[in-house]
Amino acid sequence: MNSPAEPTARAADPAARYRVRTQPWYRPVGAEVEQFEAAWGARMPMMLKGPTGCGKSRFVEYMAWRLERPLVTVACNEDMTAADLVGRFLLDRDGTRWQDGPLTLAARIGAICYLDEVVEARQDTVVVIHPLTDHRRVLPLDKKGELVEAHPDFQLVISYNPGYQSLMKALKPSTRQRFGALDFDYPDAEAEAEVVAHEGGVPAELAARLVQVAARSRNLKGHGLDEGISTRLLVYAATLIARGIPAPEACRIALVRPLTDDPDMREALDAAVATFFA
Amino acid sequence: MNSPAEPTARAADPAARYRVRTQPWYRPVGAEVEQFEAAWGARMPMMLKGPTGCGKSRFVEYMAWRLERPLVTVACNEDMTAADLVGRFLLDRDGTRWQDGPLTLAARIGAICYLDEVVEARQDTVVVIHPLTDHRRVLPLDKKGELVEAHPDFQLVISYNPGYQSLMKALKPSTRQRFGALDFDYPDAEAEAEVVAHEGGVPAELAARLVQVAARSRNLKGHGLDEGISTRLLVYAATLIARGIPAPEACRIALVRPLTDDPDMREALDAAVATFFA
Amino acid sequence: MNSPAEPTARAADPAARYRVRTQPWYRPVGAEVEQFEAAWGARMPMMLKGPTGCGKSRFVEYMAWRLERPLVTVACNEDMTAADLVGRFLLDRDGTRWQDGPLTLAARIGAICYLDEVVEARQDTVVVIHPLTDHRRVLPLDKKGELVEAHPDFQLVISYNPGYQSLMKALKPSTRQRFGALDFDYPDAEAEAEVVAHEGGVPAELAARLVQVAARSRNLKGHGLDEGISTRLLVYAATLIARGIPAPEACRIALVRPLTDDPDMREALDAAVATFFA
Amino acid sequence: MNSPAEPTARAADPAARYRVRTQPWYRPVGAEVEQFEAAWGARMPMMLKGPTGCGKSRFVEYMAWRLERPLVTVACNEDMTAADLVGRFLLDRDGTRWQDGPLTLAARIGAICYLDEVVEARQDTVVVIHPLTDHRRVLPLDKKGELVEAHPDFQLVISYNPGYQSLMKALKPSTRQRFGALDFDYPDAEAEAEVVAHEGGVPAELAARLVQVAARSRNLKGHGLDEGISTRLLVYAATLIARGIPAPEACRIALVRPLTDDPDMREALDAAVATFFA
Amino acid sequence: MNSPAEPTARAADPAARYRVRTQPWYRPVGAEVEQFEAAWGARMPMMLKGPTGCGKSRFVEYMAWRLERPLVTVACNEDMTAADLVGRFLLDRDGTRWQDGPLTLAARIGAICYLDEVVEARQDTVVVIHPLTDHRRVLPLDKKGELVEAHPDFQLVISYNPGYQSLMKALKPSTRQRFGALDFDYPDAEAEAEVVAHEGGVPAELAARLVQVAARSRNLKGHGLDEGISTRLLVYAATLIARGIPAPEACRIALVRPLTDDPDMREALDAAVATFFA
Amino acid sequence: MNSPAEPTARAADPAARYRVRTQPWYRPVGAEVEQFEAAWGARMPMMLKGPTGCGKSRFVEYMAWRLERPLVTVACNEDMTAADLVGRFLLDRDGTRWQDGPLTLAARIGAICYLDEVVEARQDTVVVIHPLTDHRRVLPLDKKGELVEAHPDFQLVISYNPGYQSLMKALKPSTRQRFGALDFDYPDAEAEAEVVAHEGGVPAELAARLVQVAARSRNLKGHGLDEGISTRLLVYAATLIARGIPAPEACRIALVRPLTDDPDMREALDAAVATFFA
Repeated sequence: MNSPAEPTARAADPAARYRVRTQPWYRPVGAEVEQFEAAWGARMPMMLKGPTGCGKSRFVEYMAWRLERPLVTVACNEDMTAADLVGRFLLDRDGTRWQDGPLTLAARIGAICYLDEVVEARQDTVVVIHPLTDHRRVLPLDKKGELVEAHPDFQLVISYNPGYQSLMKALKPSTRQRFGALDFDYPDAEAEAEVVAHEGGVPAELAARLVQVAARSRNLKGHGLDEGISTRLLVYAATLIARGIPAPEACRIALVRPLTDDPDMREALDAAVATFFA
Repeated sequence: MNSPAEPTARAADPAARYRVRTQPWYRPVGAEVEQFEAAWGARMPMMLKGPTGCGKSRFVEYMAWRLERPLVTVACNEDMTAADLVGRFLLDRDGTRWQDGPLTLAARIGAICYLDEVVEARQDTVVVIHPLTDHRRVLPLDKKGELVEAHPDFQLVISYNPGYQSLMKALKPSTRQRFGALDFDYPDAEAEAEVVAHEGGVPAELAARLVQVAARSRNLKGHGLDEGISTRLLVYAATLIARGIPAPEACRIALVRPLTDDPDMREALDAAVATFFA
Repeated sequence: MNSPAEPTARAADPAARYRVRTQPWYRPVGAEVEQFEAAWGARMPMMLKGPTGCGKSRFVEYMAWRLERPLVTVACNEDMTAADLVGRFLLDRDGTRWQDGPLTLAARIGAICYLDEVVEARQDTVVVIHPLTDHRRVLPLDKKGELVEAHPDFQLVISYNPGYQSLMKALKPSTRQRFGALDFDYPDAEAEAEVVAHEGGVPAELAARLVQVAARSRNLKGHGLDEGISTRLLVYAATLIARGIPAPEACRIALVRPLTDDPDMREALDAAVATFFA
Repeated sequence: MNSPAEPTARAADPAARYRVRTQPWYRPVGAEVEQFEAAWGARMPMMLKGPTGCGKSRFVEYMAWRLERPLVTVACNEDMTAADLVGRFLLDRDGTRWQDGPLTLAARIGAICYLDEVVEARQDTVVVIHPLTDHRRVLPLDKKGELVEAHPDFQLVISYNPGYQSLMKALKPSTRQRFGALDFDYPDAEAEAEVVAHEGGVPAELAARLVQVAARSRNLKGHGLDEGISTRLLVYAATLIARGIPAPEACRIALVRPLTDDPDMREALDAAVATFFA
Repeated sequence: MNSPAEPTARAADPAARYRVRTQPWYRPVGAEVEQFEAAWGARMPMMLKGPTGCGKSRFVEYMAWRLERPLVTVACNEDMTAADLVGRFLLDRDGTRWQDGPLTLAARIGAICYLDEVVEARQDTVVVIHPLTDHRRVLPLDKKGELVEAHPDFQLVISYNPGYQSLMKALKPSTRQRFGALDFDYPDAEAEAEVVAHEGGVPAELAARLVQVAARSRNLKGHGLDEGISTRLLVYAATLIARGIPAPEACRIALVRPLTDDPDMREALDAAVATFFA
Repeated sequence: MNSPAEPTARAADPAARYRVRTQPWYRPVGAEVEQFEAAWGARMPMMLKGPTGCGKSRFVEYMAWRLERPLVTVACNEDMTAADLVGRFLLDRDGTRWQDGPLTLAARIGAICYLDEVVEARQDTVVVIHPLTDHRRVLPLDKKGELVEAHPDFQLVISYNPGYQSLMKALKPSTRQRFGALDFDYPDAEAEAEVVAHEGGVPAELAARLVQVAARSRNLKGHGLDEGISTRLLVYAATLIARGIPAPEACRIALVRPLTDDPDMREALDAAVATFFA
């Protein structure tokens, strides 16, 4: 489990390492593919907005595959520092050695850099992207005294869930205004059922009933639930059913209990399950 | 007490080190074993909910034994950092050396990784599990520049006590919706008495009386007590009685005083003890 | 991606590295060029005030090019420490080695040092500039025991957005009173349309319509919007249109969605788009 | 005053170093000795509750002597980290070297580990003891990648003063329910006078009068005093009297002024002194 | 830009390095020069109070020149630690090496140590000066195990702006009572005009009008302005006028805009400018 | 200014280094000398309470001289860590080397350890003294794995100003009850005038008038002043007068301005000065 910190042969071609090798399964819901391609053509930084589990990460992966670009993904969090993105000096046998962070790496190799849930990050993380998102397209590594000029193919993409963001965590206008924005939502019922059947391995009719349970839960968003049942949870429920767990029990395990501990909400969701899986 | 930091022979087979060697004593209360097996079959991340000391940790240990998987357990706390889970560079004779954290170790060896009381952890700990809990099943070690692909047998399990969690500590929807969930509670009276008699070394009749004391305390939950008397404390009381401490005194030591300092609550619990051990 | 920390040949002439090589496109809106030149003549520290994306950074870049001075830009943030500006000791094969920060570097080479959004920084960052901004023109490197006397051509410039600064983050009087100040605002409609057409690659007539959408949004500032649509976003919208995205959709992607998640505000902005791109 | 960090000969037998060599003077007040022995027999983790200076620490020391076990005591505080208990890597001539913390040491050598005032500690300190306090009896050293199995004689004891603990600092139920609990209080008047006379070197009659002053102060607990006069302070007063300080003045120095700065409380306590030492 | 951390030849005579080489231009406003000389004669620690930019720093510099003492100036801030003042160990080829901080340096070489805006500092910074400011005149370097006895000529001077200090940041009585105090204010109109004309390079009559604008602003202090226009800003305005910027515009750049963003205050100040520069 | 960190010859006899070499001038105000001697005889930990500048530190110095004990003084502050008191590992040519902190040093050499303003310290600093202040008289160096037994002559003394301590900073009962306590206050008028005349070098009559000014200020304590004028400030005023500053001006510099910025308080104090120095 222990390995030396020296650069390995594999690290010698990071672009290959971050390449998306097989086509991700993605089902477009509008013109988002063409719109993203136009934005990529202009290397315009993009912001993807939408609820949990509706497919934003999958979409970026699909676009990276389609555009044949490496994809560097970073799950942001409130304890992440600028150095976690940009890089830091490591202590070595011969003194300090610089280690690029994922953002610097992406800028050098011309990757799409995807900062997932960027509003969770502290401001220093967010501000660090500014010079990469205007006409300069540079990343100053102040601690190293280097000014990285972004590879011509580099593009920055961030995601953001407007559903449960507090005011404290809103992006500053000086950051927001550096991005074009695409809105995402759950697919329509037919499309979603297709996804659930395909990924969960259940018949179309059963998938359609699961989607109807989700629809009920999404109407409760803002009335006791932070979020409705996501497509991902529907796939979980389908998977359990496919493995022999009775449908009502699978729905409780995968759709109801993960979502809420509130007894009233649980009762409402259990009723929705009972309606479709009596 | 001092030992070199070099990897030892034992560390060479961590999977063996984390194997559960003897069958843990576990008494199922429903279909949870089959449900967990179905979830494990799909490598679905699981969330176990329930009150203190009701057997969640024991259940995971039992399932790891039954599925013949190594088990890596981490007790989460609010000061734990992402590096505590993922790993860090240590300074060595020859510079820095990477040390896998327990999550990384578990992902490499295909263990069940059990994050106990995960809501206690800071967000960076929680977010770090995201890429391991969707279709990617990877763990990016940003500081090392490595992308760990999880072993096919790796599964993530978290536990969570909905009884006394503050709103501040609720899991974000984008995290919750990555897990299937099983609910746990104290076993029914007969089953619990069987546990207490078996583990505490007392006759069944005495164990049954202890369980009745616990039942009274559990009715006080939310009315002055955060939690009722757990099965574990019942085993403690039985053990003291088996070692010659008079039952009323053993109940005070093991059941009443650990639970509360409130005089009214103590009086109520003492009365319950007196009822069954007069 | 890994490189030694030793000073490279390029680092040997940092003044050249920070030179602005090609004339930035800048369209003056008043006497600001002459005023800045007079301030630079006296090496008076300057503060540029104005909303997001109105051209403050571009102006500094233009002045640096015009005055033939290197430009060192630092995007400030609330987690930046004084050491990030001034420098720090790095550990080396032979012990510690001092690494100038961007402010120290700028003071040595006679650059214009531009601290972007300085009010975001912590007080230690802000206080560190005091001795550089009065008659002393020195920078004490306390940790190194060196007193850097600023190059005769060194000038400090800071920017500041009075629109959404909280009281907590206001500059202290003892800092404010070290700067002359220039106010910036969006250019007038004709000038802005010229910018949008030039940079976005669209006909003048279309650019003029985009500018009219922005004007509507700027009237909403303080009535539900933190900031109106910036010139930068107008250029984004124009770019998408030039790449074939229908104008209403391009406006939604580049002008409406990045600005706000509020449904009422979105509706108002969509109406403005519809007025000019029906 | 400077010494190398290498393990010394003395460190080679830490069990001997932590052995209680002479019998501590302890006067039992109830069945606590037998109860603790029963708990120790089952290696049950124990929690000692009671006011300041009533003899909890002395009791643990006495039991360690009686059971012939080494005693490792840790005074907990809110700035203590988990590493302070568990251990850490130190930098050495040959790289990093692991240094066991007191809890790890105690677990290895089979000591009684006494965490004094445990509720003062941060949660990570408290959570770290969980796996040592259930059926597992292990201590995972995550940073070292070692799973320490506790010595069969290891027992964990914590103390806790319910008198002035804030709600913020209450132990979580999941921690409380891992311990049996013994209540402590000041000894009765006769027993306490015996202690004061024995340790302070004064006649029994004088000691009895000091105890009566303390009794008055303890009635003020919760009515302006956080705690009454402890046995320890009574011994102090006796000691000063034995060294020639007049009794009223000795009482002011050792009993009144340490306890409170409140003028009303001081007056009340001075009156109590005057009653018995007029 | 990179230099070794070894002591240079220049560092060998730090007293020379911190000597004030040319006479600072200072115009006394009362008996402050004689009073400071008497305080210096007794090596009494001194506290200078007064508004921003009224000449406190200049006065200290002048007194250091007059008394032929080196001057070590430290701009305090809330993130400064005691180590920043006292010194720290640096890592070296041969282990750690002690680096004196500015306060220690000043105590060794007999400098005047000037802590500018000391109330901004954290308490550990402030407390560290205590043993230097009573009869002991020592500075314990606890981390080094050295007790520095101050040079007979060492004197400590602190400054402090009572105008906008919050209660939170007031000096503790135990600190305040270690200093004599001199009050400073802006010079009277005639004296200030002389300063402005001398330093800004404008005729006396124009300087007098600028001073009248400042007088108006100072009447607004506490009624919407934190501070009035300082002498420094008047010099800025004069300098811009001397370089050809029209007087009303120069006043806006140097007097009005740096001071406030409040529209009402700006209007009031603009009116004051118009009165004297119509 | 730079010196190696190796132990010097001087460090070889730290007891000599901390010896009080000349008799401090101290004028007893009651039986405090005899009382402290009795406490020292029993090695009882002592707490000195009283207002700023009333002579607590001088008293400890005097007692250390009288008892012929070394004196180790530590000015406490809220940023001080336990390691600042106890010691830490330093990095050396040969790895880490332990450096005793002042408390450890004092315990080893049998010094009086004086923690000035101990309530300012964080809890970990305060708790660290517990095992030194009960019958154990040990100091566990957990990080070093050493248990220091205090020298038979070691005594701990702390000081504490009850005048302006917030509730947040009160000592915990478990700490308070480890100390005997002596109260200090300003000396009576005659004694104080003697001190002022002796230390300030002014005639007795003038000193008496200064003391009368102080008396007026002390009546204002709690009515607008945190503390009255201390003896130290009176000595300052006398010193300035002895150096030729007119008495009213000397009083303003040394008595009035250091104490308060409140205009009403200043007026009241100025009036007191005018009464005695018209």
